[in-house]
This record gives sequence, structure tokens and C-alpha cells, in this order.
Amino acid sequence: MRIIAMSREDCVELLGRVSLGRLGCALDNQPHVVPVRFSYADNSVYMFSTVGKKINWMRKNPKACLQVDEIGSGSNWSSVIVTGKYTELPEDRHAAARERALEALSQYSDWWSIPLAERRETVSDPAIEPVFFRIDIESISGMRALPEA
Amino acid sequence: MRIIAMSREDCVELLGRVSLGRLGCALDNQPHVVPVRFSYADNSVYMFSTVGKKINWMRKNPKACLQVDEIGSGSNWSSVIVTGKYTELPEDRHAAARERALEALSQYSDWWSIPLAERRETVSDPAIEPVFFRIDIESISGMRALPEA
Repeated sequence: MRIIAMSREDCVELLGRVSLGRLGCALDNQPHVVPVRFSYADNSVYMFSTVGKKINWMRKNPKACLQVDEIGSGSNWSSVIVTGKYTELPEDRHAAARERALEALSQYSDWWSIPLAERRETVSDPAIEPVFFRIDIESISGMRALPEA
Repeated sequence: MRIIAMSREDCVELLGRVSLGRLGCALDNQPHVVPVRFSYADNSVYMFSTVGKKINWMRKNPKACLQVDEIGSGSNWSSVIVTGKYTELPEDRHAAARERALEALSQYSDWWSIPLAERRETVSDPAIEPVFFRIDIESISGMRALPEA
């Protein structure tokens, strides 16, 4: 097996094809990682969430990363990581981006109800609105494993 | 869909059954996430790596987390996160733990050659030794999605 660095083009291609990633945030240098569905467009990744630990942390420290991979057997995998700043997108000023992300993510059964359901288990308020946000990509890199020739 | 908190027992059961996770570390409050193979034993998770970004970062800031999930459709998933401190395990003093981890991870084709191959692409030294380390679990929590009854 050989491991090679992926080109930026290949990294972006993977971000456009895979919708499941792991979002990393940090507070007081403690990292926190959660699985997320995301949509890539125009050098940013877009996500929805209700207010909870990761949103509270990124509001305090906007440094974030998103790791996305395709992992087959041990000798067949790709992994991309992007870093960037958390930016919240209020609905009134970002309707078009929100619509694009909703459309891209609508194929995932119940994706939108995940954060809502989670919050409803602990907060008895069915009217909780999801937060829409993006990570503007500042760096992107990836590694790919190739079977030995 | 309902989302419920997993018991500690259920979290540990998932850590014992799933070997692929995402390791989070942080430096200067910048999070970094990479896919890893791990082995759970005795309230710790054990991993191998060669010296690179994540090892350099955890040597400077030992606060780490490991996120592990099983994701089916949008309405069928579990995710566990553990936090703890990075501890390096020199071979001469941790031979038994190392042997247990090697045995547990040996089923993953080429798992051990991943970090080696990566380093060999960039450093022309075939004798690089992998670092063996563990995260001692300080906190553990998990969420599980259940189809609506």
C-alpha cells in the first residue's frame, strides 16, 4: 500500500460526493467531535444543528474543522480535512444558501429531524429552530491509500 | 425518530465492537480530526501512529477525544464520544498492552502499515517506528436514534 497526498481538486470532488463528515470544534483546548451531514458549495461547507454543545463552543471559538472520509478495507481509503471559521447564517439574510443546502440534504431520511429530536428529548419545546451555519474553508488537504502496484 | 442518551454500558459495548473512530486533538484552540483504528480495554482506548501532526499536537496538548459511531439511514444511528488524556506507551514498559492491541487490530488488513506508508512517502526512512499510545477515558457519552414507535 502507498499513501499519497490528494490534490485540492480531488479533495473538493470528495466533499461534493460524500455528505457525512465529522465536525471538530474546541474550547479551552479540549477537542470535541460529532458526526454531521453537510453540503459543499463555493469553498464552504454548510450544516444545520440546534443550539447545543458544538454550537455554544463554536460561538465562543469559531476555529473548526470537518473531516470526511471513504474507508473500505485497510488498504483502500481516502480522508480529507478542511479547517475554517464557523459563521452563523441567519435565515433572513441567507435564504438562497439555506435553500440550496436544504435541497442537497433532503435526500437523507430524517436528516433535519435529528437535531430537533435530540433537543426535544431534553427540552420540552417543539418550536426549537435549527441553526444554519457554514465553515469557510481556509485550508484543505487529503490523503489517499492505493494498493501496492 | 427519537434520540436517547446511551447508558455507559451501551457506550462501552459499542467501543468494544467497533474499531474505526475519529480522533480529535487541538492546539491553540484549532481542532484537528483524523480517522483511526483503536482497541478498547480497561477504560482506555489504544492506538498506533507514526510521529506526525496529531502526535506532535497531543504531546503539546494531551486533551483528546475519540468519536465512534454506527450510522445507517438518517433514523438509525449511534454515536459515542470519549474524552481523556493522551499517554504515550514506550514499548519496554507496556509490552503486554501493546501485544493485546496488536492482536485486536491485526484483523484489519494493513492497519499497521497505514502510518508507516504515509511517513515513507514523505520521509525516506523505512525504519520509522510507530508510536503506541492510549487515551484514558475521563468522560464517555453517547446518543442513539430510534425509529418512532
